[in-house]
Amino acid sequence: MPLNLTSLGCASALPTKENFFTAHVLHVRGRSFLLDCGEGTQLRLKQLGISSGSIDRVFITHLHADHVFGLPGLLSSMHLLERKKPFYIHAPAGMEKMISFYFDFLGREDSSFPIVHEPVEGDGVFTVFEGDTVHVQAFPLYHGIPSYGYLFKEVPVRKSCPRSVAYCTDTAPFPELATWVKGVDLLFHEATYLDEDLEAAEKYKHSTARQAAQTALEAGVGTLLLGHFSSRYKDNSAFLEQAREVFPNTELSTEGCVFTVPRNENV
Amino acid sequence: MPLNLTSLGCASALPTKENFFTAHVLHVRGRSFLLDCGEGTQLRLKQLGISSGSIDRVFITHLHADHVFGLPGLLSSMHLLERKKPFYIHAPAGMEKMISFYFDFLGREDSSFPIVHEPVEGDGVFTVFEGDTVHVQAFPLYHGIPSYGYLFKEVPVRKSCPRSVAYCTDTAPFPELATWVKGVDLLFHEATYLDEDLEAAEKYKHSTARQAAQTALEAGVGTLLLGHFSSRYKDNSAFLEQAREVFPNTELSTEGCVFTVPRNENV
Repeated sequence: MPLNLTSLGCASALPTKENFFTAHVLHVRGRSFLLDCGEGTQLRLKQLGISSGSIDRVFITHLHADHVFGLPGLLSSMHLLERKKPFYIHAPAGMEKMISFYFDFLGREDSSFPIVHEPVEGDGVFTVFEGDTVHVQAFPLYHGIPSYGYLFKEVPVRKSCPRSVAYCTDTAPFPELATWVKGVDLLFHEATYLDEDLEAAEKYKHSTARQAAQTALEAGVGTLLLGHFSSRYKDNSAFLEQAREVFPNTELSTEGCVFTVPRNENV
Repeated sequence: MPLNLTSLGCASALPTKENFFTAHVLHVRGRSFLLDCGEGTQLRLKQLGISSGSIDRVFITHLHADHVFGLPGLLSSMHLLERKKPFYIHAPAGMEKMISFYFDFLGREDSSFPIVHEPVEGDGVFTVFEGDTVHVQAFPLYHGIPSYGYLFKEVPVRKSCPRSVAYCTDTAPFPELATWVKGVDLLFHEATYLDEDLEAAEKYKHSTARQAAQTALEAGVGTLLLGHFSSRYKDNSAFLEQAREVFPNTELSTEGCVFTVPRNENV
């Protein structure tokens, strides 16, 4: 069965006419996992016909507004839809403040379903979830506040070769990253800036498309998928050009599109 | 100069493929006022080319999720855009919890601009803002939690006849409402349900399209604009049909469209 990544939002800190805030859905053998939850996530889910009821877990990379402000609204809609099964929020410490706010602000003493915060904290690569279709590991990124990338490894059916997806946003480049995502079939990596704004990338601890490609090259990944584009650029094609000079097998995450993860032919 | 109301979202508690959560912008002689701020407000503003910098005030009817969960993200984007001038939030008590959450969650000690909560509380019709283009009054609605409608009266240029817009959502019908919005040029009124769901309207303290039209008729308004449609209906045209049986000069608020307020020819 295909392993798919649907993009709900490809913007960075500010939206554009085309791009909403960061959120993706990873589909693995009938299970859907939400990756980040920027404002508008539930609106895109609705537009794309993805039921929130099909999602049991969200993996939040960090607690900046553009990655999490869709969460209170999503929880509220799940409650109105009378969801019963638990919703698990894998997120760094601080998420409990958002959950408390959600209940306190709306004057709700209870939700129709359990909301479970699974705190993500650690060094190196550590396990955060072992499900029946995927095992998920986390690893620290380099972004000024506690930020984590996630590594999804398919639980193999019979003796098939399991596929893997790494999700890395937001981060500046750092040496260990290529080791941690070595050989994955798909590396989703932020590319907030182009070469001309390397200084801004360094200042705000983000990556350029070229830096993301350099990590992909060092890690020997199958495909590099770029997202989290700064709103300052009118045309995103330059991200692709600059990245492909370093790592030819690069694609752009495109909002509303389903990206089928190809196998890494290099490993 | 025209008096315009732009619809950013016409959904009620749950979004649809077409409709985002409730938010509108009232444009009065170069000034823009935001009415409610459901999730996705800043996304629609961006899509429609309305700069958040052109908006100095938001008038929040009540603190249900579908009317306010776009506010933290809007504040965050204004901060990133280095806004300097104050942003005024006219809203019932409880809004201070959202503002505290915004600062606490993001770990921001300060904002690039002052965020001013102007608490809205009172009986009957009372003044909440006197600007150079509009005077704004508020009045209680009937919705189970503290909810307020707003009445915008143009400050006349020379001896021209000032126009007026009333914004009423969410509410069940109640006798005083028609008196409070008497003769306005435009009445925006929620129409969450159709006749067939009158029981749900009563249970959740909402209105049917027909009830909204009855208020418009009693008040002798110029035009009735319906919004806040329940996601349970596949086609919104029945709202128009049922309302026009009572009040022919009814229109549907349409997302992304600018509605130019005609003068009330009946007064």
